[in-house]
Amino acid sequence: MVKIEQGDLLITGKAKAVYATSDPEVIWLHHLDQATALNGKKKSKIVGKAYYTNAISSFLFTYLSQHHVPNHFIQQLSDTDSLVKRLEMIKVEIVTRNFAAGSFQRKYDVPQMQPLKPIVQEFYLKNDALDDPSLNASQMIALGLANETEIQAFQQIAQQVNTHLVELFDQIGIDLVDFKIELGYDAQHNLLLADELSPDNMRLVDRQTHQSLDKDVFRQNTGDLTTVYAEILDRLKTI
Amino acid sequence: MVKIEQGDLLITGKAKAVYATSDPEVIWLHHLDQATALNGKKKSKIVGKAYYTNAISSFLFTYLSQHHVPNHFIQQLSDTDSLVKRLEMIKVEIVTRNFAAGSFQRKYDVPQMQPLKPIVQEFYLKNDALDDPSLNASQMIALGLANETEIQAFQQIAQQVNTHLVELFDQIGIDLVDFKIELGYDAQHNLLLADELSPDNMRLVDRQTHQSLDKDVFRQNTGDLTTVYAEILDRLKTI
Repeated sequence: MVKIEQGDLLITGKAKAVYATSDPEVIWLHHLDQATALNGKKKSKIVGKAYYTNAISSFLFTYLSQHHVPNHFIQQLSDTDSLVKRLEMIKVEIVTRNFAAGSFQRKYDVPQMQPLKPIVQEFYLKNDALDDPSLNASQMIALGLANETEIQAFQQIAQQVNTHLVELFDQIGIDLVDFKIELGYDAQHNLLLADELSPDNMRLVDRQTHQSLDKDVFRQNTGDLTTVYAEILDRLKTI
Repeated sequence: MVKIEQGDLLITGKAKAVYATSDPEVIWLHHLDQATALNGKKKSKIVGKAYYTNAISSFLFTYLSQHHVPNHFIQQLSDTDSLVKRLEMIKVEIVTRNFAAGSFQRKYDVPQMQPLKPIVQEFYLKNDALDDPSLNASQMIALGLANETEIQAFQQIAQQVNTHLVELFDQIGIDLVDFKIELGYDAQHNLLLADELSPDNMRLVDRQTHQSLDKDVFRQNTGDLTTVYAEILDRLKTI
């Protein structure tokens, strides 16, 4: 591989800074020591977080690549940085739920951790100003966000990711409660899994202790974020 | 038909009182001179409203019966009362949208009256305490509210109702913007269109003047409700 040089800052997100590189098809992700919740309304500096989100995300993307899930990951560069493919991102994010928690639990007032069978898939418009409104298939189509074939492809990738991650976390005594993914098209119009895969974007619960091992400890002030992220990384490394 | 006697009050809703009858399979609907909005937070007595909602609903159900849409309507009894079949109601209501308005317009910040093609169909859980949360298909299935075949049947009836009502209102210079329906199963487990069909549950806009001819005049204090309901009934009678 030709050496890739870091380029201009493209955008600073809630937990990552995104840079161009010397290769127009490659993006440089720099994870930040920062956590946000409530759509950015709660925000804190958390030393060490970037290391864990970068390491866990790199681990999970590598694992999914081994299981043939098409994704944007190229390689980890350093403790906090990785290279990924540049994609044209779709404007919706997809939430997959294996158990009732968070907004789903509150919205329908069902018992916390009620198993959801078959799994629930939800789509949200990525629009902070509108507070990421939910979308059903007919709304996505009428708003020109995706056609029926694309929606099926989105659902299929989310389903694949779920199957493999449930199996992975099962091996380390953890229930994958729910997670959010983002998708995008590469220059050849392949639909790829993108963004980040870490406890920032998923709920993970220890099967024995029922302890949250994800960003809920930050959202709800119930524990130390880096401690639980370290716990996830340690367990993943045992596989 | 054997004469049917009015029985015990079963429930008083936002715009109707519902009575049992001497026939266990028949329900007596008494329309009320009452309007509510914002999920019951705004409420007013409006003299004459019961007459219009009963007359318009009777007209629209009769029209849909003529077009073979399975529904609960039996007959109009008086200015304010009608008989319908007793159904086991499904716990979701279905909204169909031909143009962007109301909650859809606000949720996605799209232009008012933007045409939605194909039409949008939305499901909401009937639960005032939870503020009628929206549901997608996978959520309905996981929550045990309906299976996939039932959801398709719900969508098909909503689509049929829309096709016929769009055509009907088109004849009297009115755009059917959106409407809400409720469905239920009769004793033979036939899925039937139920509830009420009136400007309480639909948005109707005059194609020339763009004036609202529905409950939005009450919601937004922009006009007299009985005047616009009378306008709808008068135009329907010209068909």
